[in-house]
Amino acid sequence: MMREFDESSITDAVVARMAGASSERARHISEALVRHLHAFVREIRPSAEEWEAGIGFLTATGQKCDDKRQEFILLSDTLGVSTLVDAINNPVTGDVTETTVFGPFYVPPPEFGLGQDMGAAIEGLPMLVSGRVRKSGGAAAAGAIIDVWHSDEAGFYDVQQMDKTGGLAGRGRFIADTDGAFHFWTRRPAAYPIPTDGPVGDMLAAQGRHPWRPEHIHFKITAPGCRPLVTHVFAQGDAYLDSDVVFGVKESLIQPYVVHANAEEVQGRPVNGPWVSLDHTFVLDDQQG
Amino acid sequence: MMREFDESSITDAVVARMAGASSERARHISEALVRHLHAFVREIRPSAEEWEAGIGFLTATGQKCDDKRQEFILLSDTLGVSTLVDAINNPVTGDVTETTVFGPFYVPPPEFGLGQDMGAAIEGLPMLVSGRVRKSGGAAAAGAIIDVWHSDEAGFYDVQQMDKTGGLAGRGRFIADTDGAFHFWTRRPAAYPIPTDGPVGDMLAAQGRHPWRPEHIHFKITAPGCRPLVTHVFAQGDAYLDSDVVFGVKESLIQPYVVHANAEEVQGRPVNGPWVSLDHTFVLDDQQG
Repeated sequence: MMREFDESSITDAVVARMAGASSERARHISEALVRHLHAFVREIRPSAEEWEAGIGFLTATGQKCDDKRQEFILLSDTLGVSTLVDAINNPVTGDVTETTVFGPFYVPPPEFGLGQDMGAAIEGLPMLVSGRVRKSGGAAAAGAIIDVWHSDEAGFYDVQQMDKTGGLAGRGRFIADTDGAFHFWTRRPAAYPIPTDGPVGDMLAAQGRHPWRPEHIHFKITAPGCRPLVTHVFAQGDAYLDSDVVFGVKESLIQPYVVHANAEEVQGRPVNGPWVSLDHTFVLDDQQG
Repeated sequence: MMREFDESSITDAVVARMAGASSERARHISEALVRHLHAFVREIRPSAEEWEAGIGFLTATGQKCDDKRQEFILLSDTLGVSTLVDAINNPVTGDVTETTVFGPFYVPPPEFGLGQDMGAAIEGLPMLVSGRVRKSGGAAAAGAIIDVWHSDEAGFYDVQQMDKTGGLAGRGRFIADTDGAFHFWTRRPAAYPIPTDGPVGDMLAAQGRHPWRPEHIHFKITAPGCRPLVTHVFAQGDAYLDSDVVFGVKESLIQPYVVHANAEEVQGRPVNGPWVSLDHTFVLDDQQG
């Protein structure tokens, strides 16, 4: 009889109820969710008050989301789920550039010509970013599309402060040349804390964790016949490389952000002070399509 | 080095980050959450698109909640989590009345005198509910506080249709007499589907499940020195007793809702047609305080 469930029989009963799911995938995901969720509940044995607190936490997390804030992605990031999903979908392959988390701050960027400045509307040291994109088979990824985004020197993205930047800023799209090479100007970003004024901030506090991410620049690179690459380049020497709150750091993604002494001009661009450079080679996977 | 996490090392890394949690309980809950959540993700190996769909589902569930609708409780109920938490916190003890899920529709009810009608503002067959409350030690629970709530004959609670009922209706508080006895009038409720116009409705459809609960009346009973009792009394013979969408049915909580032929008057109340009666004895646990 399908009634009268106790602490151990309830799990199979719920799973049995899903036998007629709309697809085998929906059935598998539902069954796994129920088994793991029930195992979690059986392990922690929540009181009625703790269960209520859990319901309240999830509700508040959903209600913190709007078109500029995604608190559930932040929760996934800070619990290491985003890094796990990334690892599952992007296994390390030969010398292909490693991936890392996408984060919540991407929006399609405005296009710039090579050598142009995508950071004019934000504060920070002038920074020259250069590099090249090639395929794991060896060929240059001519015409690769390179989307770049990063914070300003105070650690805020444009979408967090549109009233200040007056629009998208510190992000751009560049098209690699026939050798796969690219270069552009921007402003040096900074390490920053993820937003802590929501449920995820409360969770980090309860877990005794700081909310900081090491300084980084996001890259999303695509080219025909290649697997899309979503990654960061982190600043060597940053204090938070070993404790990134979203677990995104990989050794191969750390590069020197080289600080140069005062200069009047670099590559024809007026600088009039110290400036920063970063150079990195990205390798796309053209074996898995 | 605390970086460079792969599919297997990420879990211990996240757990290690929580070593300084604000309490041992917070640490234990966080660690168990991460281990079970990661095991779920490793089992289903979600694509990036499936992960996004999961984020979207949780976000929509939070955003469906307001002061009259709690979609995350509905999710907990339909995944069997509420029944599991209830079973953990209320093990079966001797002849103590079994508990079941609280549900999302409780609000503190208006008080009525014994024999009064709490269903005047809703539609349905006149129904006389009677019973008694005693303690597991044997004594009558004189003066027990009995909160009752149920749907109307169309399956809707007052809080779902305040524009129609004009206020609380189909719910009341009664005080048992010195023998622990009580009786009151109301209207017969009905089996009903839980709300399906939100993410939980979409989930049930994907899982191939109907959204129905068998006909029932909710009771919350308290008395000094006794463990509070939250339970239902289900209608014998209901078509959904074996497939309650929230897994709340227990054999001991099923009673006949006796339908009587036309009567002009019952216990001095004008009836003028068929009417229904239900009688049930509730036993409170006075051994665990």
